[in-house]
Amino acid sequence: MLLEKNKIDTLNDSLYSGHRKRFDFIAAEVNNIDAVIKKLSDFQVAIPSWALGTGGTRFGRFPGRGGEPRSLEEKIEDVGLLHALNRSSGAISLHIPWDIPGNAKAIKELAAQHGLRFDAMNSNTFQDQKDQQHSYKFGSMQHVDKAVRKQAVEHNIEVIKYGKELGSESLTVWLADGSCFPGQLNFRGAFQHTLESLQEVYDALPDNWKLFVEYKAFEPNFYSTTVGDWGQSLLYANKLGPKAYTLVDLGHHLPNANIEQIVSLLLMEGKLAGFHFNDSKYGDDDLTVGSINPYQLFLIFKELVEGMDARNMNHASDLGWMIDASHNVKDPLEDLLQSVEAIMIAYAQALLVDESGLKAAQASNDVVKAQEILQQAYRTDVRPLVAEARLRAGGALDPLQLYRSLDVRGALVKERGENTVATGL
Amino acid sequence: MLLEKNKIDTLNDSLYSGHRKRFDFIAAEVNNIDAVIKKLSDFQVAIPSWALGTGGTRFGRFPGRGGEPRSLEEKIEDVGLLHALNRSSGAISLHIPWDIPGNAKAIKELAAQHGLRFDAMNSNTFQDQKDQQHSYKFGSMQHVDKAVRKQAVEHNIEVIKYGKELGSESLTVWLADGSCFPGQLNFRGAFQHTLESLQEVYDALPDNWKLFVEYKAFEPNFYSTTVGDWGQSLLYANKLGPKAYTLVDLGHHLPNANIEQIVSLLLMEGKLAGFHFNDSKYGDDDLTVGSINPYQLFLIFKELVEGMDARNMNHASDLGWMIDASHNVKDPLEDLLQSVEAIMIAYAQALLVDESGLKAAQASNDVVKAQEILQQAYRTDVRPLVAEARLRAGGALDPLQLYRSLDVRGALVKERGENTVATGL
Amino acid sequence: MLLEKNKIDTLNDSLYSGHRKRFDFIAAEVNNIDAVIKKLSDFQVAIPSWALGTGGTRFGRFPGRGGEPRSLEEKIEDVGLLHALNRSSGAISLHIPWDIPGNAKAIKELAAQHGLRFDAMNSNTFQDQKDQQHSYKFGSMQHVDKAVRKQAVEHNIEVIKYGKELGSESLTVWLADGSCFPGQLNFRGAFQHTLESLQEVYDALPDNWKLFVEYKAFEPNFYSTTVGDWGQSLLYANKLGPKAYTLVDLGHHLPNANIEQIVSLLLMEGKLAGFHFNDSKYGDDDLTVGSINPYQLFLIFKELVEGMDARNMNHASDLGWMIDASHNVKDPLEDLLQSVEAIMIAYAQALLVDESGLKAAQASNDVVKAQEILQQAYRTDVRPLVAEARLRAGGALDPLQLYRSLDVRGALVKERGENTVATGL
Amino acid sequence: MLLEKNKIDTLNDSLYSGHRKRFDFIAAEVNNIDAVIKKLSDFQVAIPSWALGTGGTRFGRFPGRGGEPRSLEEKIEDVGLLHALNRSSGAISLHIPWDIPGNAKAIKELAAQHGLRFDAMNSNTFQDQKDQQHSYKFGSMQHVDKAVRKQAVEHNIEVIKYGKELGSESLTVWLADGSCFPGQLNFRGAFQHTLESLQEVYDALPDNWKLFVEYKAFEPNFYSTTVGDWGQSLLYANKLGPKAYTLVDLGHHLPNANIEQIVSLLLMEGKLAGFHFNDSKYGDDDLTVGSINPYQLFLIFKELVEGMDARNMNHASDLGWMIDASHNVKDPLEDLLQSVEAIMIAYAQALLVDESGLKAAQASNDVVKAQEILQQAYRTDVRPLVAEARLRAGGALDPLQLYRSLDVRGALVKERGENTVATGL
Repeated sequence: MLLEKNKIDTLNDSLYSGHRKRFDFIAAEVNNIDAVIKKLSDFQVAIPSWALGTGGTRFGRFPGRGGEPRSLEEKIEDVGLLHALNRSSGAISLHIPWDIPGNAKAIKELAAQHGLRFDAMNSNTFQDQKDQQHSYKFGSMQHVDKAVRKQAVEHNIEVIKYGKELGSESLTVWLADGSCFPGQLNFRGAFQHTLESLQEVYDALPDNWKLFVEYKAFEPNFYSTTVGDWGQSLLYANKLGPKAYTLVDLGHHLPNANIEQIVSLLLMEGKLAGFHFNDSKYGDDDLTVGSINPYQLFLIFKELVEGMDARNMNHASDLGWMIDASHNVKDPLEDLLQSVEAIMIAYAQALLVDESGLKAAQASNDVVKAQEILQQAYRTDVRPLVAEARLRAGGALDPLQLYRSLDVRGALVKERGENTVATGL
Repeated sequence: MLLEKNKIDTLNDSLYSGHRKRFDFIAAEVNNIDAVIKKLSDFQVAIPSWALGTGGTRFGRFPGRGGEPRSLEEKIEDVGLLHALNRSSGAISLHIPWDIPGNAKAIKELAAQHGLRFDAMNSNTFQDQKDQQHSYKFGSMQHVDKAVRKQAVEHNIEVIKYGKELGSESLTVWLADGSCFPGQLNFRGAFQHTLESLQEVYDALPDNWKLFVEYKAFEPNFYSTTVGDWGQSLLYANKLGPKAYTLVDLGHHLPNANIEQIVSLLLMEGKLAGFHFNDSKYGDDDLTVGSINPYQLFLIFKELVEGMDARNMNHASDLGWMIDASHNVKDPLEDLLQSVEAIMIAYAQALLVDESGLKAAQASNDVVKAQEILQQAYRTDVRPLVAEARLRAGGALDPLQLYRSLDVRGALVKERGENTVATGL
Repeated sequence: MLLEKNKIDTLNDSLYSGHRKRFDFIAAEVNNIDAVIKKLSDFQVAIPSWALGTGGTRFGRFPGRGGEPRSLEEKIEDVGLLHALNRSSGAISLHIPWDIPGNAKAIKELAAQHGLRFDAMNSNTFQDQKDQQHSYKFGSMQHVDKAVRKQAVEHNIEVIKYGKELGSESLTVWLADGSCFPGQLNFRGAFQHTLESLQEVYDALPDNWKLFVEYKAFEPNFYSTTVGDWGQSLLYANKLGPKAYTLVDLGHHLPNANIEQIVSLLLMEGKLAGFHFNDSKYGDDDLTVGSINPYQLFLIFKELVEGMDARNMNHASDLGWMIDASHNVKDPLEDLLQSVEAIMIAYAQALLVDESGLKAAQASNDVVKAQEILQQAYRTDVRPLVAEARLRAGGALDPLQLYRSLDVRGALVKERGENTVATGL
Repeated sequence: MLLEKNKIDTLNDSLYSGHRKRFDFIAAEVNNIDAVIKKLSDFQVAIPSWALGTGGTRFGRFPGRGGEPRSLEEKIEDVGLLHALNRSSGAISLHIPWDIPGNAKAIKELAAQHGLRFDAMNSNTFQDQKDQQHSYKFGSMQHVDKAVRKQAVEHNIEVIKYGKELGSESLTVWLADGSCFPGQLNFRGAFQHTLESLQEVYDALPDNWKLFVEYKAFEPNFYSTTVGDWGQSLLYANKLGPKAYTLVDLGHHLPNANIEQIVSLLLMEGKLAGFHFNDSKYGDDDLTVGSINPYQLFLIFKELVEGMDARNMNHASDLGWMIDASHNVKDPLEDLLQSVEAIMIAYAQALLVDESGLKAAQASNDVVKAQEILQQAYRTDVRPLVAEARLRAGGALDPLQLYRSLDVRGALVKERGENTVATGL
């Protein structure tokens, strides 16, 4: 399904005067308003292919209304649709083996038509695939059996191959490896095996690629995880070399972790890969980013803006920005629109932080003032800025409203049927 | 597969002299040794039918060696096998619709042959069954639509019907009902709907039955759960009436919860239903009971022994004792043998607590002494007591060793095949 | 120190035109704007006397700039100052024995001059006072020794006496009672002793008073707390009678607790007393309310507004609204200004929630829409509404700015000296 | 107070036959029994000088019975007393400025008389001392003001000086540095300042000394801590150089952290300094080690034994073993006796683990067997082994019983009075 530009324009026209009033109001209070809008327009969040369908929990899965993409082509169309609406979803993150491109050239062209590029490729050694020789039941890269590790390494190298064909430049390795019970494995042995395996993958990486080492505190292993926290991920990344980085998934931490501090230190070390955005209340709940603790999201972006500026990094292109959530009770595309909006809002708020005022407050330990400065930015209603950035880039002033008024889901169901399933989970 | 008594005897004979030495040693230090052994022999832990197969996580499921039971009859055989080995697994807890008894009379006779009774029946409104009219995607008993609630109520009444046929006397209701996002539901509305639904089920309960209201902090809903903690469960139970009780699953709490205190207070209120035993490090990890924090398990049993004695309750029969775990990396039957052993050990340790000494220490705020008394019991190696109880009841001195030496799993695989799946999850 | 009205007016004049523009902008988007402003003006948050000075941690205490109140009279002056600035701090919550009124009549008159009333009285049985006959080392109302319990009860009755003299109408009982080690106490015994003690206090309560039973998960006892969660507090409150209620302190929960659900259910049961406002990341951190997770604060107020409206309760007067925080690195008065502002903002956002739209979304399980409605209210910049309410009530448009520009702290230091200490902690 | 050897002998004589029976029983089941006993005898746990007195919480402090040491000399005497009883407390860990040795030579001789050596020295930049020029209110080594950092560095260098005089060979730096509110400090700036400060201390370290960089997740700062987790500590240690190590305090983690895995990885990296032993249920509760989760303590020791053996490290001398707890409701000396006993028990259990069997189980992913092997060691009653080690070293078979039967505390109160305070907290 393609979204005609004139449908966007029609809605925009009807909303424009209200938007103009709101934008002018906030614009008058913002310095360098055009620079801010430009940064917002440039910022693109990659959509993971597996988030285009309805997810589930270990207790089961409830179907959505249907219309989920049945092929890689349709996944690209869905992301294209999102991008047409918000002009901030110009990338897709694929998962192998769920998204093996049969004809890479055609896939690339299709993506280009939608203005999409291919963000990080994702490998999968946390599930057994049909006809797979060795099982990952007891881990993949950590496995005590060399043959299993080899299979995992080869799979990752295959994923790189697909990624090269599509123009991706990074590989995200998330390992479910770990243990469920004390004594099940030797921690050092598991670490060393994993390091060796990662090294083999690293060595197969093209020069312009990055390796993203994702960490996770727990689940699906419930006693230990072999890449369990940022400290472990950084150990691997440092041992591997300059192309290896640490990927932060917001839901992969122990309770109460100060994620923004981790982000700041990884940036300091030049080892931050980027993000998997989501939100959570209890564990890796994979809820919509910004739906539970939006202030934390703002604080993370505040660290990103300040830390990237300090290193002269390009906000839009020097880190990987991806969503990683699971939509069990929402229409996946609506959820992704809400996700991108929440990310853009947090980014916009962070851009409004009075950094020189903050530095001065910090230099004099004026804690009250520092809090005022952060809250001043956070309490500002930046939605008109985000909408304006969308508008200037050719998107919809209100993507969700347009999505609903056009009954996009209904059209997708008509086109694809009610019983489609988008993910391999 | 049936376990011939002579195989048990043969192993017991070979182990007896060593056991005798260890038992005599510890028996000499225990008062009322025969009373203790009697209590241990009487204590029976119900095996849930869904724990007889390999479980999984939301990321997937890895097969075990096979030989999982293919029918309710084979599930009963498996529990019978466990019971023959340890003489402490003399009950089975069924789940509807996974275990609908086609011929209740025959099923009852089969169970009786194995010395098993039917413990609490479990209903399921957390999944949609094939051909089900209404979906539980947005809850069951809490649902905004009366028709959905009615369907959930009727399912529970049907479960009671099956239970009556089998001689069960309790119904466990675990509701996954809740919400994933703020605003998704009205907390009071969800509570009131759930209460009304439970009341209808309660009203259909035979006089000699109990209703067990299980609570859970989170998962599969990741923002709120409508029966979320013991306080809520107790509210429901009190509003429902004298046949309603609160069921404690060890893994269903927020981090750091003092479960033993909850147990003590529920006993005080006369509202403790019983337990779902398992262990966890992070959330509802469903690991083998006693594998992560065995001291906590001991402290819970200490409260049970003291609290039940204070109310003249029968340890073996006045509460429901059930395992509820998920075995992803172990042979399910071996895991259940380890589970029952851990429970028996904790119970035995609790029976050894010097209660009068403890009361005296508490009366004088002698904290050091109180700790000494608990640790004295806990640090005692009570395994010979548990083994002796098993021996006197006709079980194996070392059930796991016998299970392995007889290659029970191999026999089951041969009999049932490699690709069987025991649970409906 | 008194704040002359003309100083407030002078600042307001200089800020007025900017405020007017911002207020008009937001007012145009709000229905019933005057009703909203009225509710905001009526809303008063009680200041606890112990928050007027610099707090500390168990590792020590760092002094502030000084100028802390040296007497009850000066504490009232400080709260009067806050109230003059924001017109939302029109109550003070006293703590006995730190704030024993020597001359109740004079104290009452002084408070009246500042427009202050006396909110809940707070007793203290978590510390030993000089010349106290019995120690609370092993608890107060839970104590195994009747004489200790009697002393604790009599202290509370004495606090009621002081409260009556001052016109207070409620008593907050926070008990540190609990245990540090397993076995130290008998949970049921501790509960029963506490219940009996509370009953004696309850019986001494005037008819128009309320008893607020505060709960806390842990600290200063680190194994168990005898009023440890809302479930336990509600048990006590229900057993005590209609004048007993449950008080919620935001920092007194286990990690990840859903506080807004607790609030909703307590309101449903007619047993919510009110709040101790603060914020926290790890435990009972006693940070400034709204400084860590302002969305949670909004969600709580959303439940309050909806739940109180459903019971026709008066927002301003039917629950107790108190701050309870500790200021270690901020000027206490500045922190309190930030605290009240954060509370008013959350309340204002909650007043903007489209309740009928939300009900409709819930009725159709439109989770996306429900989230949109909450976020629409939350993302609105309501600060001009709060400022307008202050302005109409005679307060300062920007209290903190005025506080700083007048160098109130400097004046207080000059008046009272550098080494004063306001609290008994 | 000195403990005459004949008093120990008298008690030992009365207990000997019972002990003999128990020891012989367990000895018969242990391989290399004498090697195990030797390792237990060699193992020494340092007593921190501040644990000899009654601690408190931020809500206050309740006095003990008195008799607390009034001077460094008396602290040494107390540790000497403990060591005479259990022969496992042959070291003391001092804290400056609380324990400044007036006459180092005399102090050293006194310690030698008691068979004590001086373990790690502890500096204090988390409190302001009287007449201190700069305040640590906003941090010490992280402080934005160079003068404050310099003061902190110089204090640490002074601590090294005292340590050299006493024969200590390590410095433990625990920094409370961090922030209470978002925005209060710049994470990278705080890290860089801290690193520079630590580097200056490191440079002043004698060649044979070690620098122990302790980490802590939170408290007394409740938003961020500048050495907040093992990952950060390891970053510092690696940047500082080969004499810098990471110190693990069991209570300094986020909820549910897998401490044994951290320990294993730090050992792998050659960067584990040692331990501060205690236990906790909620945060840094500083409870008696082994009183809440003794299985975790065992798992940690299991990693230590296996990991140290793999590196040919000497259990007794190659890591620092210290207690760090706070005794609020117990006699401090009794608590320390319980603490050392719990540590020795965990160590003894770890020594009993069948390592080759475990390796084989791990190599075949036999999770059930691996759990059996750990539980076999843990469930063994190793108390007779610990008692035998004590006996052979000249200590008491039952230190706590002897301490009580001799009324040591009564004698100390008589000698030192009732109102003494041992710590500077």
